[in-house]
Order: sequence, then structure tokens, then C-alpha cells
Amino acid sequence: MADAPPPFTCLDSEVLVTNRWHRYRRDRYVQTDGSTGEYYYIDMAGACAVVPLFEDGSTVLVRVHRYLLGCELWEFPIGGMEPADEPLPVAQKELREEAGLLAEHWTELGRFAPYKGVSNEITHAFLARGLRWTERALEPSEGITVHQMPLDEARRRLLEQEIGDGQSLVTLMLLDRYLAR
Amino acid sequence: MADAPPPFTCLDSEVLVTNRWHRYRRDRYVQTDGSTGEYYYIDMAGACAVVPLFEDGSTVLVRVHRYLLGCELWEFPIGGMEPADEPLPVAQKELREEAGLLAEHWTELGRFAPYKGVSNEITHAFLARGLRWTERALEPSEGITVHQMPLDEARRRLLEQEIGDGQSLVTLMLLDRYLAR
Repeated sequence: MADAPPPFTCLDSEVLVTNRWHRYRRDRYVQTDGSTGEYYYIDMAGACAVVPLFEDGSTVLVRVHRYLLGCELWEFPIGGMEPADEPLPVAQKELREEAGLLAEHWTELGRFAPYKGVSNEITHAFLARGLRWTERALEPSEGITVHQMPLDEARRRLLEQEIGDGQSLVTLMLLDRYLAR
Repeated sequence: MADAPPPFTCLDSEVLVTNRWHRYRRDRYVQTDGSTGEYYYIDMAGACAVVPLFEDGSTVLVRVHRYLLGCELWEFPIGGMEPADEPLPVAQKELREEAGLLAEHWTELGRFAPYKGVSNEITHAFLARGLRWTERALEPSEGITVHQMPLDEARRRLLEQEIGDGQSLVTLMLLDRYLAR
């Protein structure tokens, strides 16, 4: 008799919904007691969050209306990856299109799973330096505004808003870890 | 002629998939340029993350196999809410069942959106003090282990793992904000 597959082995995976942004899937998998479980989740290639840091110590936050929360949030620029994308080019494209910035020097700050129970997304956090302004390339429908401010003010805005943006807060933490080294 | 609805007005909302954990929905809504857009997302009542803090300054992390990432993560105890749940009782139930701890004193540390683009979940972060051990009530299939350690060691483990757990890192940041006040 063949050995049973070990826990967390995927038995099969079905895409239930596909759209421009992600796939919504259901997997059947082996649970720790050997029984079969179902897992429903967002299948998403990843995302890149960017902290632009000017020589004078200022940074840039964007102000974004978040439909799912019914409010505006302060955030670092962040953009989704598509399958086969590499993180750095996505971070560069996002910073240029959303914030209107080009950067000469890029440092990877770390990576994290923003929503480990329901999405396989990994967010890659980058520090961008050697900055200069260029034209933004937003769709008029996006309605995102760009705000340059001292890093301490950005920290206060990110930490003190009524509903924090988890991905920006972790990115800030990874920046602090890098700056402390 | 009637005025057009303002941007981000929901025109209709359809549940595409329902399961034990969440609903996967598609809304049609008004974009900033007045056109109709589609929004696919996880509809989830919320979650509660708990930092248990003992009088000697130690805390508790759990070690959880995350199927979607194919690895184990260090995390603070966290549990999902169901519609109509209040955060505090969910935090209390989660701490007892997952970590085997009862707490006398509870402080709300703040709240954040872990995955604002794809889920309407709000995570509520709590500090739990006045702790004593009790029996855990895990399903044998869950395979979560519980580890008491100094807060600084927990901080290191959360920050230095290869893929960080976003929700635990934000919770740690909100704890630091509270302890600094």
C-alpha cells in the first residue's frame, strides 16, 4: 500500500473566478490528521511597496480612496505584480506612475505576507533613493494624490490614522530595521 | 434629470462564493470619472490579534504552518470574526483556544486593514495582561505550537523570519506605540 501523502500536500486546485487582478481558487489538501480539507484563497503573484527617501530626509505618501473601507488612507506607493513579473521593475514602474518619481538607487528592505490566511501574496518592500520628479501616468479614474513630507510626519500619519494601512506600516518597520543597521 | 451618484457608490453587490470563512464578492461601483467599475474582493467580518504580556516581560508566539506560503511562520495569536461578533470576546476566545491563556486585563492597541485592496477585513490588535495558563482547545488538525519568550526575542523572531507575517508585525508596532506613550 502506498504511503499517504504528508500534511499540507495539495490534492487538486481549481480556479473559481479569474479577473484582471487575481484568481480566486479552491484547493483540496491533506490536513495534519490525514483528512481532506478545502482551502479558498486569493492567488496573487505579489506586490511591491516603495519608500522614496529624498536627500533632505523627506519621503512621499499617497492619499488613496479605498473602496472596501469607505475612506481615504495614507499609504506608501504600492503596486501589484502579474505572474512572471520580477519585483524590482514593478517597484520602479509603480513609483513612476503613481508618485511621478524616478530613482537611481534601489534597496530591497525585506518581504512579508500581508494576509497569510487568505492570500498567497508576498509584498516586497523597497527603498528608493537618488530621486527626481517626472510626469505621473495615472488614469484619471484613480484619484490618488501625492504628498512630500518629512519622514517623521509620514510616520505619524501612517501610525495615527483611524484605520492603519497594514502594508505601509510593515514597510515602515522594514525601513527602520534597515536604517538601524 | 437626476444627479449621477458620487464616485465609489456601490451600484450592486453579488456573492460569488460563500464558505465557512468568508464571502467572495463582486460589486459594481461608480469610478471617479463616472464610469462603472467592477470590484472583486474578500468580504470578511474582521480579525483579532493578541499580544499576551506576562509580568516578567515575556510574551507568547505561536508557530503555524501556513498552507498558502508552504512554510511555518512565527505569529501572535490571531482569530477571525464572524458577522455580528464583537472584537473583545473573539480576542479572548482566540487567546484561550490557540495559546491556552486567560487574561484579566485587556487593552485595545488599535486597528488596521491588513489587505486594503482585496479584503474589507479590519484587524483589531489587543494587549492582554494578568495572564494565567489554562487548557488549549485546538482541533488536532491545527498543529499549532505555543512558545513563551522574552518580548525582545519575539521581536527578533517576527522581524527576522524570511517571510514576515504582516499582521503580527503591525500588531507589534501598535504595541510599541502604546508602550511609548
